[in-house]
Amino acid sequence: MSKALPKRSENYSEWYNEIVKRADLAENSAVRGCMVIKPYGFAIWEKMQRALDDMFKATGHQNAYFPLFVPKSFLEKEEEHAEGFAKECAVVTHYRLKSDGSGGLEVDPNAKLEEELIVRPTSETVIWNAYKGWIQSWRDLPILVNQWCNVVRWEMRTRLFLRTAEFLWQEGHTAHATEEEAVSETHQMLGVYAEFAEDWMSMPVVQGIKTPSERFAGAVETFCIEAMMQDGKALQAGTSHFLGQNFARSFDVQFVNKENQLEYAWATSWGLSTRMMGALVMAHSDDNGLVLPPKLAPIQVVIIPIYRSPEDLATISEKIGPIIGELKAQGIAVKYDDSDNQRSGWKFAEYELRGVPVRLGIGMRDLENGTVEVARRDTLTKESRAVDFEKPEEFVLGIKLLLDEIQENIYNKALRFREDNTFLVDTWDEFKEQIEKGGFLMAHWDGTAETEAKIKEETKATIRCIPLISDEMAGKCVYSGKDSPKRVLFARAY
Amino acid sequence: MSKALPKRSENYSEWYNEIVKRADLAENSAVRGCMVIKPYGFAIWEKMQRALDDMFKATGHQNAYFPLFVPKSFLEKEEEHAEGFAKECAVVTHYRLKSDGSGGLEVDPNAKLEEELIVRPTSETVIWNAYKGWIQSWRDLPILVNQWCNVVRWEMRTRLFLRTAEFLWQEGHTAHATEEEAVSETHQMLGVYAEFAEDWMSMPVVQGIKTPSERFAGAVETFCIEAMMQDGKALQAGTSHFLGQNFARSFDVQFVNKENQLEYAWATSWGLSTRMMGALVMAHSDDNGLVLPPKLAPIQVVIIPIYRSPEDLATISEKIGPIIGELKAQGIAVKYDDSDNQRSGWKFAEYELRGVPVRLGIGMRDLENGTVEVARRDTLTKESRAVDFEKPEEFVLGIKLLLDEIQENIYNKALRFREDNTFLVDTWDEFKEQIEKGGFLMAHWDGTAETEAKIKEETKATIRCIPLISDEMAGKCVYSGKDSPKRVLFARAY
Repeated sequence: MSKALPKRSENYSEWYNEIVKRADLAENSAVRGCMVIKPYGFAIWEKMQRALDDMFKATGHQNAYFPLFVPKSFLEKEEEHAEGFAKECAVVTHYRLKSDGSGGLEVDPNAKLEEELIVRPTSETVIWNAYKGWIQSWRDLPILVNQWCNVVRWEMRTRLFLRTAEFLWQEGHTAHATEEEAVSETHQMLGVYAEFAEDWMSMPVVQGIKTPSERFAGAVETFCIEAMMQDGKALQAGTSHFLGQNFARSFDVQFVNKENQLEYAWATSWGLSTRMMGALVMAHSDDNGLVLPPKLAPIQVVIIPIYRSPEDLATISEKIGPIIGELKAQGIAVKYDDSDNQRSGWKFAEYELRGVPVRLGIGMRDLENGTVEVARRDTLTKESRAVDFEKPEEFVLGIKLLLDEIQENIYNKALRFREDNTFLVDTWDEFKEQIEKGGFLMAHWDGTAETEAKIKEETKATIRCIPLISDEMAGKCVYSGKDSPKRVLFARAY
Repeated sequence: MSKALPKRSENYSEWYNEIVKRADLAENSAVRGCMVIKPYGFAIWEKMQRALDDMFKATGHQNAYFPLFVPKSFLEKEEEHAEGFAKECAVVTHYRLKSDGSGGLEVDPNAKLEEELIVRPTSETVIWNAYKGWIQSWRDLPILVNQWCNVVRWEMRTRLFLRTAEFLWQEGHTAHATEEEAVSETHQMLGVYAEFAEDWMSMPVVQGIKTPSERFAGAVETFCIEAMMQDGKALQAGTSHFLGQNFARSFDVQFVNKENQLEYAWATSWGLSTRMMGALVMAHSDDNGLVLPPKLAPIQVVIIPIYRSPEDLATISEKIGPIIGELKAQGIAVKYDDSDNQRSGWKFAEYELRGVPVRLGIGMRDLENGTVEVARRDTLTKESRAVDFEKPEEFVLGIKLLLDEIQENIYNKALRFREDNTFLVDTWDEFKEQIEKGGFLMAHWDGTAETEAKIKEETKATIRCIPLISDEMAGKCVYSGKDSPKRVLFARAY
């Protein structure tokens, strides 16, 4: 490590950027607005993918793949959808380059497309155009499909993971015979996202409904999960949309229902992206670097030998064989770092930076004493634990329990932080004061888009969601003083 | 099933198209040249991905992700590479649409990009531009990276899986400190592809070197695996390129070597795509539909109850519980199809069409007799096997062995077919006659691009590869009569 990380408390934004770069998660590419996800970062994303994919399959979904390109005419079919996405898209207009006569290349004007193609910002249109051929009768329903892919939304100001022109995600697109079933699917997938965020990412989330002005373009209702970052700002971590019959109407997808009548199919879509990598960094990391929940850590346990001579190293390496074997047998991702090009102190700092949950340090004296130094990344504490080097089963069981404990502790810490930074706010002065300090503000709102817009204009706070679970206590709007049925969640957001 | 499949022997091309569609593997989309990979097809591709990915990781590779877009200037940097890919690419020229004033959308002329972006046809340029920042010293090498992604190569005449504008693939890109190491990596990955094709796809392949005219644009040497389809044509099933220092030079990627001198890094790249799905169909299927090697089958065993009354169905369903449980316990993907909307005969045909390797049929009489009808998809034979419905372990072990046998039998059948259709050809008349009948022609070639081009022009046959393993017997070129060191493999190809 060259120099210390910026401190989280001093420059949160710079701290985030440096962790992403130094922990080797991602970097900006020379291609405007696009990122390179580096192997260590991608290994975390792969673990996220696997966990989510298993959950999708367990709830009856299958993967498929649809075209990258959306013809312009498809985008035009759903008016709100078009308005939402036409302003920020990559447009393919030609299909060939040619030599420019001086060693370079230029666009071949003879290879202009008759109809422009948009690089998908999301795939509702392309998918519903395909579903038209798949759906004739209620027997063809439901269709429960997901795809893992890249999408492009042109962004002027980009930020690694949080906002990039190209990002990776999954998008589920389902078709149903009844409204009830589609609504239930929308809720089910919101639940899957919440479970993933909390159980895998150790990140507590608030489940809620978006206001009409924050709704997905083309949706009837948008549900979301919102998480609090360590600077008190909110991050939208996944959305699940009930699309009604909007896309079925736009693409004329009708089916014969059980009553033998033609009816438009009911739709949902739901997505979660590499933005979650940014959330993971910002939710848990500290001034020493990344803090990873064990379930998503590419390396869960790192073992570092502490030695002076090559002979000592050989002795340690031999002695710890059974520990490594037993860790692997227990399904724990372990790395033994016996590289000799860096000192152990450097290695300690490096694995801390990379967020490895548990570090085992073993020196010659440990071999004599039958001990191992066990360091936790989440608390930065360490202790000496007894081990039988010949029969390490009990020791390894302890490590396994420790990983579970860390997973839970990280969650609890984040939950406590959110609770400490969530405020019931009842006056406009309080609101303005608190929003500057950060946090989630639970306040009454009169339900109008006007008030929502004015609050945003004056404070940069948006309604993150109308929480699904809340006290159903009526009150007066914090801005207009008008009636409000219940509090909603305001925050500044990423 | 509506009507019978076209016969393989009568219209091979139509037979292929129909299997792809009717077995629900893929379909053409409304987006020119792009396909939709349907859930059943994608499930096979996922199994291919998992198997390959495990092999990549076992050989020390890691996944990462690089941008979709290649700036035009990147493509210009490597001359041959540019020539190879500039003619068939999707070009992004604008980043916004706007309302056209009459309800539609049009390209916003004010949103023209300063530099055009190409949708990646392959990622050597983008990746080597990134590697420049990753490589300073020999200590940073090797870099062993792979990415799974979509690529676009504009094609005028497309065909599901075999030739589409957009396709999915993996592309490995490695950087090494020495030429020797890079060459060895090129060979290693060719070996991985061959092993995958033979062990997983049951598809024998010839490993060889491409002639200069068939080489990847920008490579020093291209290695490939070539498989024979059932119409005697060849299909290139994976390529591994030794890129020398070409891309390192173009993107100025130098490192300090162990001798403390600046040197350009050595490169390889290797790719395998959804084209393999087409190969899988064409290598094994028959007039009844798809034939899948068990290792890649999403459903390995289907169980179909044969019954007259709902009571019979209930009895059968109860009795076969332990068989299903034991199949799952053995890691076998089993589906019990007790749907009541189709007759069992229809189901038999449907699962044959979808290539399910083993079908178990169970009726009331089977329950009495303690038997199960076991049908093999590869040979279309069936037999009655004894089973203890309470303790089905032995029966299930037999099914497990049967799956292995099918995997091997499909391979052996394809190998015999290739052997029967590979010909040593020594005269030009023989060559012209045999190429019309199809098959692999092992013939002498004088080593010139002129002869290669003339043979292609006159017969549509190309040199698929110079096999790595062959009799090193000199002879005379089948076309020019000039000296030839050894035979090469000619064929018409997909």
